[in-house]
Amino acid sequence: MLVSGTAIVTEQHAALWTDGRYFLQASQQMDNNWTLMKMGLKETPSQEDWLISVLPENSKVGVDPWIIAADQWKNMSKALSNAGHSLVAVKDNLIDAIWEDRPPRPSTKLITLGLKYAGLTWQDKVTALRGKMAERKISWFVVTALDEIAWLFNLRGSDIEYNPVFFAYAIIGISSIKLFVDSKRLLHPAVREHLELDSPSKSELTIQCFSYESVYTELQAVCVALAPKEKMWICDKASCALTQVIPKAHRSAIPYTPLCLAKAVKNPTEIQGMKMAHIKDAVALCELFAWLEKEIPKGKVTEISVADKAEELRSQQKDFVGLSFPTISSVGPNGAIIHYRPLPETNRTLSLNEVYLIDSGAQYLDGTTDVTRTVHFGTPSDYEKECFTYVLKGHIAVSAAVFPNGTKGHLLDSFARASLWDSGLDYLHGTGHGVGCFLNVHEGPCGISYKTFADEPLEAGMIVSDEPGYYEDGSFGIRLENVVLVIPAKTKYNYRNRGSLTFEPLTLVPIQLKMINTDLLTQKERDWVNDYHRKCRETVGAELERQARKVALDWLIQETQPIV
Amino acid sequence: MLVSGTAIVTEQHAALWTDGRYFLQASQQMDNNWTLMKMGLKETPSQEDWLISVLPENSKVGVDPWIIAADQWKNMSKALSNAGHSLVAVKDNLIDAIWEDRPPRPSTKLITLGLKYAGLTWQDKVTALRGKMAERKISWFVVTALDEIAWLFNLRGSDIEYNPVFFAYAIIGISSIKLFVDSKRLLHPAVREHLELDSPSKSELTIQCFSYESVYTELQAVCVALAPKEKMWICDKASCALTQVIPKAHRSAIPYTPLCLAKAVKNPTEIQGMKMAHIKDAVALCELFAWLEKEIPKGKVTEISVADKAEELRSQQKDFVGLSFPTISSVGPNGAIIHYRPLPETNRTLSLNEVYLIDSGAQYLDGTTDVTRTVHFGTPSDYEKECFTYVLKGHIAVSAAVFPNGTKGHLLDSFARASLWDSGLDYLHGTGHGVGCFLNVHEGPCGISYKTFADEPLEAGMIVSDEPGYYEDGSFGIRLENVVLVIPAKTKYNYRNRGSLTFEPLTLVPIQLKMINTDLLTQKERDWVNDYHRKCRETVGAELERQARKVALDWLIQETQPIV
Repeated sequence: MLVSGTAIVTEQHAALWTDGRYFLQASQQMDNNWTLMKMGLKETPSQEDWLISVLPENSKVGVDPWIIAADQWKNMSKALSNAGHSLVAVKDNLIDAIWEDRPPRPSTKLITLGLKYAGLTWQDKVTALRGKMAERKISWFVVTALDEIAWLFNLRGSDIEYNPVFFAYAIIGISSIKLFVDSKRLLHPAVREHLELDSPSKSELTIQCFSYESVYTELQAVCVALAPKEKMWICDKASCALTQVIPKAHRSAIPYTPLCLAKAVKNPTEIQGMKMAHIKDAVALCELFAWLEKEIPKGKVTEISVADKAEELRSQQKDFVGLSFPTISSVGPNGAIIHYRPLPETNRTLSLNEVYLIDSGAQYLDGTTDVTRTVHFGTPSDYEKECFTYVLKGHIAVSAAVFPNGTKGHLLDSFARASLWDSGLDYLHGTGHGVGCFLNVHEGPCGISYKTFADEPLEAGMIVSDEPGYYEDGSFGIRLENVVLVIPAKTKYNYRNRGSLTFEPLTLVPIQLKMINTDLLTQKERDWVNDYHRKCRETVGAELERQARKVALDWLIQETQPIV
Repeated sequence: MLVSGTAIVTEQHAALWTDGRYFLQASQQMDNNWTLMKMGLKETPSQEDWLISVLPENSKVGVDPWIIAADQWKNMSKALSNAGHSLVAVKDNLIDAIWEDRPPRPSTKLITLGLKYAGLTWQDKVTALRGKMAERKISWFVVTALDEIAWLFNLRGSDIEYNPVFFAYAIIGISSIKLFVDSKRLLHPAVREHLELDSPSKSELTIQCFSYESVYTELQAVCVALAPKEKMWICDKASCALTQVIPKAHRSAIPYTPLCLAKAVKNPTEIQGMKMAHIKDAVALCELFAWLEKEIPKGKVTEISVADKAEELRSQQKDFVGLSFPTISSVGPNGAIIHYRPLPETNRTLSLNEVYLIDSGAQYLDGTTDVTRTVHFGTPSDYEKECFTYVLKGHIAVSAAVFPNGTKGHLLDSFARASLWDSGLDYLHGTGHGVGCFLNVHEGPCGISYKTFADEPLEAGMIVSDEPGYYEDGSFGIRLENVVLVIPAKTKYNYRNRGSLTFEPLTLVPIQLKMINTDLLTQKERDWVNDYHRKCRETVGAELERQARKVALDWLIQETQPIV
C-alpha cells in the first residue's frame, strides 16, 4: 500500500510523485507506462514544472478540489496560468468514476475521553477557542484537521490506521457549534452523554449535528448570513473545495489554527498521561530486548517476528489501543532505508553480526509513544560504534540544550548534527516532530528541522521527538529517538527575564552501551548517559517490579550500569 | 543624521518607523507632533496595521514609487486594499516640493579597478552573466543595486559615505549593454578607456551610455520592443516605479540576482586582496592598542579621539580609501548600545575601570575590513570575563564549525549562542553578514542569522562576519568580530561526496587574553585561541617588521602569548 503520492495523467504521459519512503515500492509496483518522480531529489521536476514541460499550449489541468489543499491549489494555479494553462476543479473525481470495489468511508466506534485523560472538558476547550476568536475579531472557525476535531471534542476514532481520529468537520461560531459526522456514530449513549446531545447545559454549548457530507451546504448557508465585516478562519491546508465556499472578503486562511497551537501545549493531565504511556512502553521494550538476547542466537528471529513480538508485548499494557505507526524493524542494510517496513520479500533474520534498528510506538488511552533504538547483539565494528556515538552526541546536544523562550525548533537542528558534520557525516531527515497525546504521532506546529522555518516557537508543555541518525547505504542504519517534553530551565542568569527552556526525556529505554565509544564522549555527555540510565532504572524498574517482570528487570539493570 | 527610517503623515497623525540604532536619537530630535515607532519591538504596529487603525474608510495612501521597493509595495498595497483603502503612487514627491536647500545628487569621480584588484575584466563578468541569463532563457536584466553595478563594471565611486558605489542603473541584454550614469563622470580618459567607450573590441561588449534619469524612458523603449515570450529579470527590491515599467508577462522578479550571487563568491584575486587588506588593518589596530595602553592612564582619551586615531592609523596604510562604516567606539554603558556612534554629548573618557568596545573597518583598494574587539585596560570583573568568555566560545564555535556543502548560514547561528544560552544569556542581533570586496561592508545573499531563512547556502569563497556579543544594559557591551572566509574542509569521512566547508579568519587582531576566563574553555577552544594568535603574530608581525613599527610589534608579541 502506497500511502502518500500524487498521480498526474495526461493524454501522453502518466507520472507519480512520491517521497523517499516509497521509491523502491513504487518502482516495483508500477509498469512502464508510468514515470516515477522521486520527490526530494534535486533533479526531480515539480508537478507544475513537469506539466508545463509536457502540455500543449492553453491546456486545462483538472483536479478534484476536495483532495487538494487550498495553498497548493493557489501555487499550482498561479504557475500554470503564468505559462498559459489553467487549473480547473473537476466536479466528479475521475478515479471514483472507474473505481469499482471502493470500500465505504470508515465509521468506527467513537471513544469518549473523560477528564481523567483529557484534562479539560470539550466545553472548556470550546470556550477557550472562542476567547482566541474574539481576540482576533473572528466570528467563525471551520475546523478541518481531523486531529483538531478529535482533540477539541475529547473524542477518538479509528477511521485511519494508527491515527486515532474520525472523519468529521466542525464549524465553531461565537455562539454555536456545528459537528459534521456520520449520524450513526452519535447513537451510542456514552457519546450522546459526552457531547450533551440530549440535555445541553448552555445554549452556546449546544452541539448541532449534521451528516459528514452536508458541511458544504451548511458552510454555504453560514456564509450567506455573514455580516459585511465578519471574518472566518480556515486552515490554509484545508481542501480547496471547502475553502472556496468562503467568500474572499470573509476568509482568513491561517497556516496554524489556534486549536493546533492549543493541542501542541499539553496540559498537566496529558503530560502525566504521556509519562505513564512511556513507562508502559518501556516495560514492553525491556521485555522485547531481554527476549531478543535469548532468542537471536537460535537464528529464527526475523524483522517481522520482532515487530509482531513488540506489538504483542505492548498490547499487554494497560489502556493499549494499537500501534502509532507501522513498526520499522530493520537488520543491516535494511536499516539504511529510512522508512523501511519489513515485508515477506525483504524480511531478514536477526543475527549476531549485524546492526538492528527498531523504530516503533503505540497508542494508549493516556498517550502516544515513538521510540527508536539501534543495537548489536554481537560485537559492533569500530566504525559502527563511531557513527553511533556521533548520533548519540547529537541526541544529547538537543536533549540537554538550554535555549531562551521564543526559540523556534529549527534553530536546534544543527546541534544534533555538529558531531556528525565534524567527521563529514550527516543525515537527510529532520531531527524531530511534534507528538500528539493519544493522537497523531506526527503533529504541528513545532518540530526540530532544518527544512522548516515557519514553525512556531517551542513552549513549555510541547512534546517533540529527538531523533538524529546516520545511514550507511547498503550496510547499516543508526537512529536514536526519544520523545522529549519541553520544560522550563533554570539558568545562572536570566537575560531580560525571558526565561529558558530545555527538554525532559519521556522515553525511558536504555541506550545500548556496547554501541558507544566512550572515548568520544565528554564528561558532560557521560554524565547525561548515566543520569538518563539511572532514571530508566528507577522509573521503569519500579513498574517492571510491579508487573513482576523479573527477566526484563534483570535486563534493565544490566543495561543501565554507569559508564566511566 | 538618521540614515534609516520611514515617515507616514496623515491629516491627524505623524509617525516615524526606525530601528534600534536610532531610537534614542529619533526620540531626542523629534517634537511631540511625531510618534516614534520602534521597529523590532513586539508592541510596535507595522506600517500597514497602523495605517488601517488610524485611517477613515476608503482612504488613499500616497507613496513615492521611486523610494519603495516592489516587494514592499506589493505587501502594503494588498494589506491596505483588504481593509478597503488603496495605495497610490504619487507622481511628485511631496517632500521634494517643500525641500528648499536640497543638495544635488552626488557625482563623485569614478575609480577604475584593473585586473590586479578585480581579478576578472568587466567584459568577462558580462559574458558570464549572459551565460546565466541564457541558461534561464532571460533576454534582459535590469540592474538596480549599486554595488552590483560597481562590481560588474569594476568601477567604484564615493556617492554614498562608506559605500564605494555610484548612482547608476544598467540594463544588460544578450547583445547590448546600457549604462545610465551622469555623463560628466564618463569624460575622464581613464574611465573611457576602462569601459572601451571610444574603441569597443566587440559589438556585444559595446556600452551605450545614457543619463541617469533616462533609465525610465529607455526601459519603456526596451519593453515595447520585447517579443511575446521574452523575460526580463529585475530584483524584487528594485523600486516599484521601475519595476512596474516592465509588463507583468515579461517580468521575472527575483530575490537575489545572479550578480549578487557571483559577487558574493570572491575570486582568487579578491581573496588575496581581502587578506592583504586585513593584514594592513591589523597593523593599524596593533598600533592603536599599543598607543591606547600608553595613553589611557593619562585620562585624556575619549571615544571620539580613539575613533579619530584609528582612522588616522588606517589612513597610513597603502591603498586606504576611507572607512567602511562609522566607527563604534564605546566605553562602559555606551557599549550596550549596539549601533552606538560617539557624539560630543555622549562622549566618554576611556579609563582603567570600564570595558571598551571598538567596532571599525575600512575600505582599501584591495578589500573591505570590519573588526570588533572588546578590551579592558585595567582589571575586568569576573562577570565581565565570564560573559566575554561565553561570547568567545560562541565565536569559536562558528569559526571552527565544519558543515556540509549546501548548508545555509542561518543554521550555524545557534552555535554562536549555545554557551550564552546555557547561562541564560543571549544577544538580539544576527551573528554574521556578507562582506564585500572594496564594496559594501554589508552585502547579501549569505549571512549567519536566525532572523533569515531565504539566505543562499554558504560556498567556498564567500566572506562573512562572525560576531556574537553580549550586552548588559547600562553597564557594558561585548562583541567579538572577525571577518571569515568560507573554505573547503577536509573531513575523516565524506558522506555522499558532498564535501564540507569551514571558515578561515581573515581578521588577524589579537583577542585580549585578560578578558578570558580560561577555566571555561575546552582544550579544543584553547588550541583555537593559540593557533589564531600564532597566525596573528606570524602574519601581522612580519608586516609590522616590514613597516618598522616596533612598539606595535612588541604589543603584538605580548598579546599573543599562548594560554594553557
